[in-house]
Amino acid sequence: MNFNTILGNRDFIEYLRGKKASFLLSCAVTKTAQIPGISQAGIPGKMYLTPTLDAEFLATSEVRSLDNIATTTKGIPTPALITRAVHELKAFENLEFLNLGFEVMPKIDYFKIYDFNIKPSENIKDGANIDALTLFQKAVEFGQNYKSSSEYTILAETIPAGTTTATATALALGYDCKEFFSSSFKDAPKGLKDEVIQTALSKITPSMDIFERLSLVSDNMIIFNAGFILGLQASKHKLILAGGTQMASVLLVVNSILKTMGGQIDSSILALCTTKWIAQDTNANIKALLELLDFKINAYNANFDFASSKSEVLKLYDKGEAKEGVGAGGALIYACINGLQKDEIIKKIENFLGE
Amino acid sequence: MNFNTILGNRDFIEYLRGKKASFLLSCAVTKTAQIPGISQAGIPGKMYLTPTLDAEFLATSEVRSLDNIATTTKGIPTPALITRAVHELKAFENLEFLNLGFEVMPKIDYFKIYDFNIKPSENIKDGANIDALTLFQKAVEFGQNYKSSSEYTILAETIPAGTTTATATALALGYDCKEFFSSSFKDAPKGLKDEVIQTALSKITPSMDIFERLSLVSDNMIIFNAGFILGLQASKHKLILAGGTQMASVLLVVNSILKTMGGQIDSSILALCTTKWIAQDTNANIKALLELLDFKINAYNANFDFASSKSEVLKLYDKGEAKEGVGAGGALIYACINGLQKDEIIKKIENFLGE
Repeated sequence: MNFNTILGNRDFIEYLRGKKASFLLSCAVTKTAQIPGISQAGIPGKMYLTPTLDAEFLATSEVRSLDNIATTTKGIPTPALITRAVHELKAFENLEFLNLGFEVMPKIDYFKIYDFNIKPSENIKDGANIDALTLFQKAVEFGQNYKSSSEYTILAETIPAGTTTATATALALGYDCKEFFSSSFKDAPKGLKDEVIQTALSKITPSMDIFERLSLVSDNMIIFNAGFILGLQASKHKLILAGGTQMASVLLVVNSILKTMGGQIDSSILALCTTKWIAQDTNANIKALLELLDFKINAYNANFDFASSKSEVLKLYDKGEAKEGVGAGGALIYACINGLQKDEIIKKIENFLGE
Repeated sequence: MNFNTILGNRDFIEYLRGKKASFLLSCAVTKTAQIPGISQAGIPGKMYLTPTLDAEFLATSEVRSLDNIATTTKGIPTPALITRAVHELKAFENLEFLNLGFEVMPKIDYFKIYDFNIKPSENIKDGANIDALTLFQKAVEFGQNYKSSSEYTILAETIPAGTTTATATALALGYDCKEFFSSSFKDAPKGLKDEVIQTALSKITPSMDIFERLSLVSDNMIIFNAGFILGLQASKHKLILAGGTQMASVLLVVNSILKTMGGQIDSSILALCTTKWIAQDTNANIKALLELLDFKINAYNANFDFASSKSEVLKLYDKGEAKEGVGAGGALIYACINGLQKDEIIKKIENFLGE
């Protein structure tokens, strides 16, 4: 198994080959996910449970706050299975969780869950109602004090309806990028998403500053991760943003903050790592999104797919469903540089499904 | 896959089984390599590029300072492929480079390249013109301050025409060993090499001390590695000398310095690890070379060959071409004690060649 370079050169990932990695999962709920049909990253009516179930499954291989593992309406299993499979075959040095607004706390012992006293954000149609500046400041401070025994950290996310809030975020900051964002659907409900995004954006007025805009249309994951990235500049600890267009939106927020404040970033310590399904998504354009940044960024995708799987439900990924989440792309690149083979990962995932 | 004991017992390597290893590549150019026909470790007329290309390929799997990977005139690919294959299957903890006189700096980011302000050495026919004492002192200091998070370090080399300078070095120090040295050729150009070595040795006068002799006939790799070995005595960090008769020459230099200065060495922290092609080379005798030392040394070879490969070009190794370099033998022994299989290594190397 190998990886492909989307932007930059191979060297960032090659340097990390064989080195230990910590895994950090940003877990958040936006009530935007309650809009029927907006997301398939969970159980209809219970989307708020997805981050809880993803955290439980990633940590323990069990879902404890529900009888069955979170699947989409089409029965597509969460990408947490991919990350968990990699973790079982070649364990991360550390697995930690950021509580950026769980609706239900995951039932896991021993694992560190960082708490920031953050509530789920509201539906962006009504205004997300996030205290964006305070949240951002908490994240910067967390990044500044972040200690890891690993050479690098993989930062992932789980937040249903996150591509909708990510799109709204980038548009609210003035980026011309509406067509560049992915969806967890193969055939995204464009009309519905557009309407939600437009309603959210209608609340933005030209005089609003960045944080006022984020407070209305963004989500806790995006704002926190942006602050964390900037806080990490203090230690130069290397960071992989494990995700697709949502992580690109995080970087666009970083970019806007730097421009407004006249700040600089050493982006050589950063890379975005995603899946082949995102990199080859014809309905989105991760590369174009990243090229909107004023700083250079390394970006890669893992050459992993389910072509050789016998599981029909997993093959839906290859058809464009689900695509990314819970750090699947970053975990797969970690697998690449730690000698794992595609077939052993697929077998492990099939075992989870009882196939 | 297993390894064979040339000298000592298995215990040094068995102790290191499963432990983390750092990999350090000594990269040097001697203008001796410009003599037509003296070496096949690179492209005729561009031998000076070999260390650059080896470093690039080992770090990134790409050659960046040339269109194609360095091959010999007979099309034998560099042993860097072997080391890279092992690194991809079971990554070294760390990959670092010693700039002991690159002609062209390798185009790699992130990876540590230690710089010592050293220039390529001259053709030994005209005198190598190395400030051997200063170079040696830099190396001792580097060894004394060397820190590694790994249990041991694998020290390798890439320097075309290195067996010629290695032979001249050992002879200049008075060892009776002319017939013990290997060559990158199956049928070494003995007449040519002998003439170069004799011309070099003719500049040596009986009154010269060790460093004056090394200044005339040696190369930067040998002198530096000898100093590094002695510097490491301070920390007792375990070291594998990954190479063939060139690394034996390094040990002979250490031996001569100890004798002259009345010093002692704890050689139990050292081992030489090489390939089967070197160990079974009927035109050389690595064991006899190592038996010239006044201290005991562990020495091993990996039981790896290309007998089961479908690649004709790789099978040339089994016929006695190339044999060793870029730490191939040490990497293969590391593979042995980390559970890798011969066939997966061969498959990986064949993939590099597109076969």
